[in-house]
Amino acid sequence: MATLGAELELVEEGEVHIALRFSRHLSQQHGFVHAGAITSIVDSACGYAALTQAPAGCEVVTAEFKINLMRPALGERFLAIGKVQSAGKLLTVCTGEVRAYAGTPGTHKLVALMQATIVNVAK
Amino acid sequence: MATLGAELELVEEGEVHIALRFSRHLSQQHGFVHAGAITSIVDSACGYAALTQAPAGCEVVTAEFKINLMRPALGERFLAIGKVQSAGKLLTVCTGEVRAYAGTPGTHKLVALMQATIVNVAK
Amino acid sequence: MATLGAELELVEEGEVHIALRFSRHLSQQHGFVHAGAITSIVDSACGYAALTQAPAGCEVVTAEFKINLMRPALGERFLAIGKVQSAGKLLTVCTGEVRAYAGTPGTHKLVALMQATIVNVAK
Amino acid sequence: MATLGAELELVEEGEVHIALRFSRHLSQQHGFVHAGAITSIVDSACGYAALTQAPAGCEVVTAEFKINLMRPALGERFLAIGKVQSAGKLLTVCTGEVRAYAGTPGTHKLVALMQATIVNVAK
Repeated sequence: MATLGAELELVEEGEVHIALRFSRHLSQQHGFVHAGAITSIVDSACGYAALTQAPAGCEVVTAEFKINLMRPALGERFLAIGKVQSAGKLLTVCTGEVRAYAGTPGTHKLVALMQATIVNVAK
Repeated sequence: MATLGAELELVEEGEVHIALRFSRHLSQQHGFVHAGAITSIVDSACGYAALTQAPAGCEVVTAEFKINLMRPALGERFLAIGKVQSAGKLLTVCTGEVRAYAGTPGTHKLVALMQATIVNVAK
Repeated sequence: MATLGAELELVEEGEVHIALRFSRHLSQQHGFVHAGAITSIVDSACGYAALTQAPAGCEVVTAEFKINLMRPALGERFLAIGKVQSAGKLLTVCTGEVRAYAGTPGTHKLVALMQATIVNVAK
Repeated sequence: MATLGAELELVEEGEVHIALRFSRHLSQQHGFVHAGAITSIVDSACGYAALTQAPAGCEVVTAEFKINLMRPALGERFLAIGKVQSAGKLLTVCTGEVRAYAGTPGTHKLVALMQATIVNVAK
């Protein structure tokens, strides 16, 4: 996350937000942020969200995720939101999305959508 | 849908609900509804939701979906909810969920979660 | 599986084949087999494949899968192949495919492709 | 790819290999390569594989992918293999895997498995 310049913006029970500012080194020749960076921030948001509901003494590992990349990641600022949808003893299912902000305040476009399965692992 | 005994319960712009009552012929020896039936109703809900936003003269075909099955489908009644998250000219991305209702009115359990990519195809 | 008329055709360590003959009650108005039936046989093939490598005393439950439906399931006969790609203590990852056979002997078309995560659960 | 230090190792009709050497800046405190880097190389391998079969005048865009991360990416060298499974006019379905090499020559461990849907887009 540090490498990308991403920042934890909100950590609540079952929900985590990670913000990312546009930066040239994250972008392609077309001027939009690499899918790899977008995927990383929403994967992290889901992982941290799962961690807020993991049993004591456990850490979390992403077993798998699926991501739809709906449009090029054009924007000044991106917000990845990870939410726990179901937390079991062993597996947590999270959904995530990435919003792109640019121009008009208060509006955003949905850039990516994730569904992830995360495993609780005893430390 | 008819074979399963499922019913369209709500059709709105971008959102479709399909209801399914528990029935013995849909269930396994353990008394819960087969994952196949659960998958079918939420896949259909996503497909119909996409259809509400497809361009005129198009039908829709599911290109792929991912589903998490979070717990056994135990209940008297199941509700599959499909929602359009992003509708392009060509591809529509939907999310879906299946809720199980039993016992206490007004409460449900989340049984399954889907994320699907649906293609608009000229008729 | 019985409801669909599907048959276990091969069970080997880490690989299971399930065959399905075309039947009118499985097909839509366009004459191809429902995606629901195709999904069910390949999901089962993956599940049984995982079971061949599950630890003693465990049964298996599908936590999630993703399926691509590449073309309409047109054919006289369908073969679902499930293979274990990685078997851990807790989670097994399988891939599956469904082949459609029609006309020319020895040739088939790839109808669907699956990637699934299956959990070992103590009985 | 350049940022990661990854290299195209093989480009054939429908199959592409991308190699990545272990490097400290790609790794976490535990000494294994970040899931983000692993995801990026296999996503790229799938995209390039799709490109080898895209119609003339088209470029490719990843619509979605699903990845299973089976074990920590421990190794001296990683190989991402992307393969076209089905190429349509519009959509290409690819599978990908990442192998980790370390110690014993000629042996590897499967680190990740991907299934991706890629869209042909006119340039």
